[in-house]
Amino acid sequence: MWLKNCWQVAGFATEIGDRPLARRLVGESVLMYRLKNGTAVALQDRCPHRLVPLSSGQRVGDEIQCSYHGLKFAGDGRCTHIPGQSVIPPNSRALNYPLFERQGLAWIWLGKPDLADESLVPDFPWMDPPSWNQSYGYHHFDCDYRLMSDNLLDLSHENYVHRHTIGNQEEESIAEYPVSVTVEEGTIVRVHREMPKIEPPPFFQMFLNTTQPIDRWQTAVHMPPGIHMTEAGAYVTGTPRANASINRIMHLLTPESANSTHYFWCVARNYRLGEASLGESIIKSINTTFNEDKTLLELLQRALTAAPEKNMPRFAIRLDEGPLRARRLLDKWVKSESSGGSFVAPVRSLVSDEAATPAMQTLRDGTHSG
Amino acid sequence: MWLKNCWQVAGFATEIGDRPLARRLVGESVLMYRLKNGTAVALQDRCPHRLVPLSSGQRVGDEIQCSYHGLKFAGDGRCTHIPGQSVIPPNSRALNYPLFERQGLAWIWLGKPDLADESLVPDFPWMDPPSWNQSYGYHHFDCDYRLMSDNLLDLSHENYVHRHTIGNQEEESIAEYPVSVTVEEGTIVRVHREMPKIEPPPFFQMFLNTTQPIDRWQTAVHMPPGIHMTEAGAYVTGTPRANASINRIMHLLTPESANSTHYFWCVARNYRLGEASLGESIIKSINTTFNEDKTLLELLQRALTAAPEKNMPRFAIRLDEGPLRARRLLDKWVKSESSGGSFVAPVRSLVSDEAATPAMQTLRDGTHSG
Amino acid sequence: MWLKNCWQVAGFATEIGDRPLARRLVGESVLMYRLKNGTAVALQDRCPHRLVPLSSGQRVGDEIQCSYHGLKFAGDGRCTHIPGQSVIPPNSRALNYPLFERQGLAWIWLGKPDLADESLVPDFPWMDPPSWNQSYGYHHFDCDYRLMSDNLLDLSHENYVHRHTIGNQEEESIAEYPVSVTVEEGTIVRVHREMPKIEPPPFFQMFLNTTQPIDRWQTAVHMPPGIHMTEAGAYVTGTPRANASINRIMHLLTPESANSTHYFWCVARNYRLGEASLGESIIKSINTTFNEDKTLLELLQRALTAAPEKNMPRFAIRLDEGPLRARRLLDKWVKSESSGGSFVAPVRSLVSDEAATPAMQTLRDGTHSG
Repeated sequence: MWLKNCWQVAGFATEIGDRPLARRLVGESVLMYRLKNGTAVALQDRCPHRLVPLSSGQRVGDEIQCSYHGLKFAGDGRCTHIPGQSVIPPNSRALNYPLFERQGLAWIWLGKPDLADESLVPDFPWMDPPSWNQSYGYHHFDCDYRLMSDNLLDLSHENYVHRHTIGNQEEESIAEYPVSVTVEEGTIVRVHREMPKIEPPPFFQMFLNTTQPIDRWQTAVHMPPGIHMTEAGAYVTGTPRANASINRIMHLLTPESANSTHYFWCVARNYRLGEASLGESIIKSINTTFNEDKTLLELLQRALTAAPEKNMPRFAIRLDEGPLRARRLLDKWVKSESSGGSFVAPVRSLVSDEAATPAMQTLRDGTHSG
Repeated sequence: MWLKNCWQVAGFATEIGDRPLARRLVGESVLMYRLKNGTAVALQDRCPHRLVPLSSGQRVGDEIQCSYHGLKFAGDGRCTHIPGQSVIPPNSRALNYPLFERQGLAWIWLGKPDLADESLVPDFPWMDPPSWNQSYGYHHFDCDYRLMSDNLLDLSHENYVHRHTIGNQEEESIAEYPVSVTVEEGTIVRVHREMPKIEPPPFFQMFLNTTQPIDRWQTAVHMPPGIHMTEAGAYVTGTPRANASINRIMHLLTPESANSTHYFWCVARNYRLGEASLGESIIKSINTTFNEDKTLLELLQRALTAAPEKNMPRFAIRLDEGPLRARRLLDKWVKSESSGGSFVAPVRSLVSDEAATPAMQTLRDGTHSG
Repeated sequence: MWLKNCWQVAGFATEIGDRPLARRLVGESVLMYRLKNGTAVALQDRCPHRLVPLSSGQRVGDEIQCSYHGLKFAGDGRCTHIPGQSVIPPNSRALNYPLFERQGLAWIWLGKPDLADESLVPDFPWMDPPSWNQSYGYHHFDCDYRLMSDNLLDLSHENYVHRHTIGNQEEESIAEYPVSVTVEEGTIVRVHREMPKIEPPPFFQMFLNTTQPIDRWQTAVHMPPGIHMTEAGAYVTGTPRANASINRIMHLLTPESANSTHYFWCVARNYRLGEASLGESIIKSINTTFNEDKTLLELLQRALTAAPEKNMPRFAIRLDEGPLRARRLLDKWVKSESSGGSFVAPVRSLVSDEAATPAMQTLRDGTHSG
């Protein structure tokens, strides 16, 4: 169902501070805090002695002291103090998880520690200022993270789920624009759709500041287990594609339990940089939109949970190609990991020259010629 | 535990309108609505594509459009529209359930569709105006429907459960009047009790408008799986039985889940026709009474659920004969259906000449001689 | 997990009155009430006829009448009345549990009735006035009673769990005073600690009315399944130990379910007898303290329940000796009982001359020489 030998988002770097932050991640109880030297660390949130959550304890210097019997543990899990005795037995370590921070994200490795390799942490340069601007947020969905992946890989749902927000009459026909689905190196699924010369929907009017016809594209990208990007680009028809306004919406899904998911998100944009009020508008808009997804997917999850024996869709439609290919890849990875050995989930760049979709290539070419 | 190859009450006809009505019936999620031509239809409340409840969708003409991907389904389950493609695959049908309306009730067939036969829908002529008047209501009980059947087939409980409402001091001795229990054609269980020349309890004083001694009878009738009728008749002692005032209380039980039940009820009376205020009094009285049953039976269900290994009564009393015979019949039917094949639950008339109890025969004879 | 062939506390004698008191004890639903002659009786809280909780019925004379069908049961479980019949079948008895009152406690025997022997009821003379004064209370903990036993047998936790109440800076080092652990006759585990010549913590200043150095001891005693006593004694250093002020805190744990426990407690003291306001202070202090344990142990229980596969502590510390020995004894008893036969949990005196710890012996010797 899920993967452990891979880096997954444990939180935003800003969430981790002096006080222990407890969070359930991929079924594990995790505790995170920041050492005085600024390094963020993660421990299993359970004292190895009597299993009390260490997050109920207190920070003493760079250590956490258990709230029950007062044992102390360092950021690397080492037990440093046991009341009533001077000998610290070697099996008294608390479990420590590798943690790596980049681009405002804290990535955790919940699998076999010796397989953790920081060079495998996904890299999203557009999440770094200043050439792009970022707007952040978090949602908690009470559903299997795979239902969210299905949703993110078929964006035609916006006409129905988001009927009253980002979908609209102009959009009625989004499902009618054909998509191209590509799979790269057994890892990345990319679902791309071009919509040339259309009336700009309200959201696009707002951020492009135009009512003229636009050329628009939409690319949904997925890398297992739960990394998604939606690239939404647009420019006034007839102007250079290289000058397109682009949103890269990162949907970073980390399962909490079998039926609940942490949804860390970030909208990176390459236009109207520095406009704080635009960032606020984007956050407000995304909150509304993702809440609509949340309502739908939690309803779906409850229906599936109520009748688990009937959880098999009876047929697929053309627009399912993206979701189905991604599921198949994920299943393969999960199978590889659970068959033991030292399988590690491979990592690819979400936007690579080699893997660029036609839109990307055009964009790149445009940049070259611009 | 329950039957599917039979007609069961899905709701009152008046409940089914333009908007989808979602209801769980015998463990199935069902959606009902009424076509423009007035026909009520029932679909499985789950899109065959991605399993979202169709009841979260919207009515478009005579069709239901799924809230997730916009597929449309007709009232017979046929898929009529799939965004992004013109081909409708043959396996894209939504499950449709036969629905039949009669006497203000919507009957549904949740078993094998080819076995559905409208001639098997139970017929209750006294639920048709104008020779009888009807008062309707609904309760939801959080218990196994079989506990409700037990309750309805031993009316002596009214002295205890309904101590403060329909039971009273005069009634103290109802359990002491012997009952006759008959089983007809392996289908109908009938528990009959005559109470000649008794003081009329308040409820009887009210509807008979007398304080003189009365002759009274009480018949509890059951047909599997969940159809019950309580006939309560009375007349002033010495006057012709043919002029008796009769209530036929229909208790139409449809399991929702293993431990919850829809309770559709109707009180039909053959006296003081057209008195609207009497109908209101009856509804108020029944609401109070059934709420007392609800409190007791939900308490019992919680006790059974808490200790399922101790759910076997340790002994039976004489008054259990009706409930026990009905359970035995039901068990036999359930076994027949679950052994596969094309077993269909047989249907009998609740009030037939052949099957009439002595009271019925007297009534009929009285009518003949009257 | 638990024992039945033993006497366990069902409640305080004062809780049992005319009206049926329903309580779940060691997984059994029990109903208690007091006959007119003052005898307290206990029945299974479920009518043997149709399993309705008898506690929903009503008291009629010395009997309980079931709320459903009106059957009546005497305090010994005998069925005395069945509506509609005069014959009372021999298998119509309600289950009756032996109940015995002593020292303000009602003890119940939930195991094989023929093994119940009143001479096995634990005897706590210090719970009788007037040579000791008693303060009583009750807590409900949503956790396995064995987690509470672990807690009560390693009092070093007070520095951490009760950091803000009974623990304090002076106490910081309580874990550093060595404990002696003794096991008596395979039944009693005793964990003893002497703390000579220490500054009196606030609570001790209060009840000893001194700020001078004190000699203090602390003994945690356990008898399976759930009987605990904490003896806390102290006297001004240099004065005779025989004049020590002693608290005997009885922790009487009776499992409610696998993960919830009744906690009946009593603080008996041998000093400042008759000071009602001191009794009130003690009750207030204990309530605060036990609520801290409740918060911690319920947190621990939730963590264990959430990941039952990881419920094994990874190492033990020196201070675990008491808890571990008690667990081992309890496991042995549980195994003996569950292997059938007529095993009865043995009972020993919590404070005996033979089993006295050094502290007890000193106390006794002091008394002799005083």
